[in-house]
Amino acid sequence: MEYASSFKKLIEELKKLPGIGPKSAQRMAFYFLEAPKSQTDLLAEVINQAKDSLKNCSNCFNMADNDPCEICSDQSRDKSLFCVVEEPKDLMAIERTKGFFGLYHVLGGAISPIDGLGPSDLKIKELLKRIDAGVKEVVLAMNPTAQGEATVLYLTKLLTKYDNLKITRIAYGLPIGSDLDYADEATLVKSFEGRREVNV
Amino acid sequence: MEYASSFKKLIEELKKLPGIGPKSAQRMAFYFLEAPKSQTDLLAEVINQAKDSLKNCSNCFNMADNDPCEICSDQSRDKSLFCVVEEPKDLMAIERTKGFFGLYHVLGGAISPIDGLGPSDLKIKELLKRIDAGVKEVVLAMNPTAQGEATVLYLTKLLTKYDNLKITRIAYGLPIGSDLDYADEATLVKSFEGRREVNV
Repeated sequence: MEYASSFKKLIEELKKLPGIGPKSAQRMAFYFLEAPKSQTDLLAEVINQAKDSLKNCSNCFNMADNDPCEICSDQSRDKSLFCVVEEPKDLMAIERTKGFFGLYHVLGGAISPIDGLGPSDLKIKELLKRIDAGVKEVVLAMNPTAQGEATVLYLTKLLTKYDNLKITRIAYGLPIGSDLDYADEATLVKSFEGRREVNV
Repeated sequence: MEYASSFKKLIEELKKLPGIGPKSAQRMAFYFLEAPKSQTDLLAEVINQAKDSLKNCSNCFNMADNDPCEICSDQSRDKSLFCVVEEPKDLMAIERTKGFFGLYHVLGGAISPIDGLGPSDLKIKELLKRIDAGVKEVVLAMNPTAQGEATVLYLTKLLTKYDNLKITRIAYGLPIGSDLDYADEATLVKSFEGRREVNV
């Protein structure tokens, strides 16, 4: 015997979700069967609500309730300092540190020829337009991947054309709390490349 | 800044799913935002369909499209051989082996005082009624957990009262393809307890 047809259909749909394999899908399907209808209806509702109400900020392309977003409309932020990230979730990771007080620019991904993503698919033109308006420093905060690296190279080439614009990128190296002995070679190499003089 | 409110609500709802932590919930939420509405609507629909159309078989309490279920109404199955399992997913695991041709009985869980689950919460009375109808062997296929063990003990006590009823339980031991050296102690102990004479 196989699972009942409507149950199999549910498992198939759940398997489409990111990071969900056959076992997790089965577990989730049993969970939905046992959950009260009010809860599954609520889930469907919040999905639709999020899809309907969320917009992209027309300045920085962050995902937000309002346009312009909370960050772009915050007058206390330093408008001469820009941080460029790949995705809204990277922006959120930096915001959680409560250590950056400039503005952001969300590219919407990274250059990845294998996925058919070229520079024209990213919000690069929009970034250049914003920089024209008097930005002093652009921090490139791409992920430490081949795609992130390609994006940094491409952006650096474009941005060096601007006079008086400082281009920086975040440091890659040993994560805090880790152990030299357990670090992979690529991280250690980055960590040596990024070494800084100690000022006593 | 924090995530937009409707997005946060979506993450909170997704975190209620089994096995989904904050990171997976965030990833899934981004997925839902980007997915076409037709796909998220389909998911909501199949959840409701499964909830509405699935029933429990009134014989064996397996989850099924019809009552009695496919297995109980299959005339070629051996009606004198019963396999008792905790949950429908355990039944499916055994069905996938294509090696058992008797009938099943799904208890709906295992005895677990810590979760407030006693014998009266399981389909035990219903099992006894079915056994009265001339069953020759009952295979107990509980999970190798404290709860499964308690259920086996309880059922064995009840079932020994029946004359001419063979009570067996599935073997616990080293899984096929594993390595003695990597096996945990509890599994090895079970494996020794369950040793059988080799017939040449």
